[in-house]
Amino acid sequence: MATFQIDTPFLENLKNLIQEQEDSKLKRKFKPMHYADVAEIIQLLSQDEATYVVKLLDSETTADALAEVDPDIRESILDNLSAKEIALEVTELDTDDAADIILELSEDRQEKVMSQIEDDEHAQDIRELLKYDENTAGGLMAKELVKVKEDLSVLKCLNEMRAQAEYVTRVHSIYVVDEKNRLKGRLSLKDLITANSKDKVKDIFIPKVDFVTVDQEKEEVAKIMSKYDLEAIPVVNQKKELLGRITIDDIVDVIKEEAEKDYQLAAGISNDVEADDTIFELVRARLPWLFLGLLGGLGSVFILQDFEDIMSEPQLRNLFFYTPLIAAMAGNVGVQSSAIIVQGLANDVVKGSLFNRLVKEIGLSLINGFALALVIIIFGLISQQEFNVSLTIAGSMMLVIVVAALVGTFIPIVLDKRGIDPAIATGPFITTANDIFGIFLFFYIAKLVLGF
Amino acid sequence: MATFQIDTPFLENLKNLIQEQEDSKLKRKFKPMHYADVAEIIQLLSQDEATYVVKLLDSETTADALAEVDPDIRESILDNLSAKEIALEVTELDTDDAADIILELSEDRQEKVMSQIEDDEHAQDIRELLKYDENTAGGLMAKELVKVKEDLSVLKCLNEMRAQAEYVTRVHSIYVVDEKNRLKGRLSLKDLITANSKDKVKDIFIPKVDFVTVDQEKEEVAKIMSKYDLEAIPVVNQKKELLGRITIDDIVDVIKEEAEKDYQLAAGISNDVEADDTIFELVRARLPWLFLGLLGGLGSVFILQDFEDIMSEPQLRNLFFYTPLIAAMAGNVGVQSSAIIVQGLANDVVKGSLFNRLVKEIGLSLINGFALALVIIIFGLISQQEFNVSLTIAGSMMLVIVVAALVGTFIPIVLDKRGIDPAIATGPFITTANDIFGIFLFFYIAKLVLGF
Repeated sequence: MATFQIDTPFLENLKNLIQEQEDSKLKRKFKPMHYADVAEIIQLLSQDEATYVVKLLDSETTADALAEVDPDIRESILDNLSAKEIALEVTELDTDDAADIILELSEDRQEKVMSQIEDDEHAQDIRELLKYDENTAGGLMAKELVKVKEDLSVLKCLNEMRAQAEYVTRVHSIYVVDEKNRLKGRLSLKDLITANSKDKVKDIFIPKVDFVTVDQEKEEVAKIMSKYDLEAIPVVNQKKELLGRITIDDIVDVIKEEAEKDYQLAAGISNDVEADDTIFELVRARLPWLFLGLLGGLGSVFILQDFEDIMSEPQLRNLFFYTPLIAAMAGNVGVQSSAIIVQGLANDVVKGSLFNRLVKEIGLSLINGFALALVIIIFGLISQQEFNVSLTIAGSMMLVIVVAALVGTFIPIVLDKRGIDPAIATGPFITTANDIFGIFLFFYIAKLVLGF
Repeated sequence: MATFQIDTPFLENLKNLIQEQEDSKLKRKFKPMHYADVAEIIQLLSQDEATYVVKLLDSETTADALAEVDPDIRESILDNLSAKEIALEVTELDTDDAADIILELSEDRQEKVMSQIEDDEHAQDIRELLKYDENTAGGLMAKELVKVKEDLSVLKCLNEMRAQAEYVTRVHSIYVVDEKNRLKGRLSLKDLITANSKDKVKDIFIPKVDFVTVDQEKEEVAKIMSKYDLEAIPVVNQKKELLGRITIDDIVDVIKEEAEKDYQLAAGISNDVEADDTIFELVRARLPWLFLGLLGGLGSVFILQDFEDIMSEPQLRNLFFYTPLIAAMAGNVGVQSSAIIVQGLANDVVKGSLFNRLVKEIGLSLINGFALALVIIIFGLISQQEFNVSLTIAGSMMLVIVVAALVGTFIPIVLDKRGIDPAIATGPFITTANDIFGIFLFFYIAKLVLGF
């Protein structure tokens, strides 16, 4: 691989150069690097070292790297830069990254930085992007794109494109607009190169063009771009005027963020936190779910207290030994069922009626429950438990598994139909609900069967 | 949005047309569709209906759609097609998709299909791709790419490119090779368009080009492409000869699959299953983890049996009521800790020593544990439990939480250092370990403190 290995000796060397303020050596080291490597290095340096590097290097080298680093680290570096210095960085960035960074600043700093941007057109584009919600297509798009009017000739189009392309890092499609800037279609670079130079744009452009509107949710944009394998998509307003474009690299980030959020939710972690966040950020993300679990546990205490009397019966008291097992089974089965449904809902593969789905889960749980129940009965025989007690435990566990699977299937589907993100249902929510449910069912069924 | 809405009335209408064999109407309906929409429709039809549609439409319309649909559905459709019909579909596909589909066929069917492909060069390219492991760069790459020799002039290069581009759907970069087909650099379409036609390729090409070798893991390729925001990357062998290229749309799929696999593992589902898989596939993916949980539960039975005697003590028996609570807390905390570490490891953000990380988890758990312990004590006061019993329960729960967090942090890091996917540790594995651990600690600490 041609890319660059950031290892400990390399980092140590870099830290020494920073320590000794070997500015020209540092500049030479960073000069040939990809911004993604610069970003990785910045994340591995201390705050002071990182600030030193950013101040030392020119914004051409650091701007894209700053746009890549973790927001917390970026904030701590930008705090040490003047409005003028930030403006220089922002000037180097595409409008979408520039707007993202400026939005993270305090409001009066935003104004100071904006007023220091020398390129008026760039500043105006950024100002426009600041208006959009960061969770929408408007929040993702950049103003950089190449567009031509439909009545140009291919030759003029090529010239126009050459002029515009200087400001656009990557050209995917050339968008074709009418005289009122309304999106009419697109022209691929490939088509342009393979076209006859006397052709007119309107003769060769593709009128079928996917687009999103500026207020569509970013998850929806991600779904569309990944479904249709698009590398860029134009963004329009209600009048179909071309406002900007979204590129696939930003969508890759959206998809990763989504997946991480779902994974964290499933593990009982709200908010977007990382291993390197502060203890208090982590407490805030984790404690609420533990409280939920605690309330569930206290609910179980109530249920179990009701059966205090059977503790004096040598065989019946065995039921108490099985409570963690029942709770664990109910929780595990519920999480399995809900995870499959949540993923199915996210990928639109959950077909058929709710009824069919529930029937399938019942079948599946009966098979799994039966296999597990056999183990319980064998274990009971080995440990010389009364057979009817083992049978009751095994049977009620089977029922608990079926109910837990139904709860795990049902809750995400209901949440989804009501427009709530079903990912919130997996993990602690389902586990806790099924813990209480399972223990409740287990003891009351045992009471019914064994007649105490 | 310009894309296409597949709703129930539309589907009903389609099913009717299939039923009544309205072939020309069907052809007209499918003609203008994007292959991703055709794929979605195929997934929503019954197997017979889908087969009817695939046989009816020409392979230009269906090939890419077939490459997109769920492998199980594809298999059931291909089973009803002749080798000749499959060969026609495969001929329309890019070599990477073609190879993926052929690899799913039985071995003697593979040979039959390959021998029916009329375009020899295409067949040869596919044969080459069949050799590579599907989890490597070779398994992802396509042979379709545009390359030029370094000593061409820009004008000749444009002509050469026009010829090659006919066979390449999307051109990202033009790869520059020497006379032995060794990768020397790249040329962007933009550079080519903006260059002077008298320039030579070797004067304008960019010698710095990222590449992967044919045997690199696909997850590694995904990491590189998403880190460096690449839309395509060339694949070379050990001699640096250019073999193919990987495009970002395939990488988006890899990233999604990875995320889904991790999510399923965290929920205790091995294998890649979907909501629509058969009951037996789902049993196989889910039952092993439930067995693990069951074994854990039986372990708890053993531990609890040891404390049977305290069931006759009115205050001490309260400990039994708290077992589900302790198990739930230990499980939840462990899953939270491991999820953060697993994500951190995947994103390379886990910095600092193992020691620092463990210290942080201890701090965090003490805060969370203290908050939860307070609730336990208040609950004990309300339910008129002896204060020393409540205090013991609260205190040992705090310790259980700290230990559970350490286990959740430690296990993924150790697995990762030994080259095992740490994602396997979250979910049932950590939950089960912490259930037993938690109950064990809880009862033995209580025994020590309360002296029974």
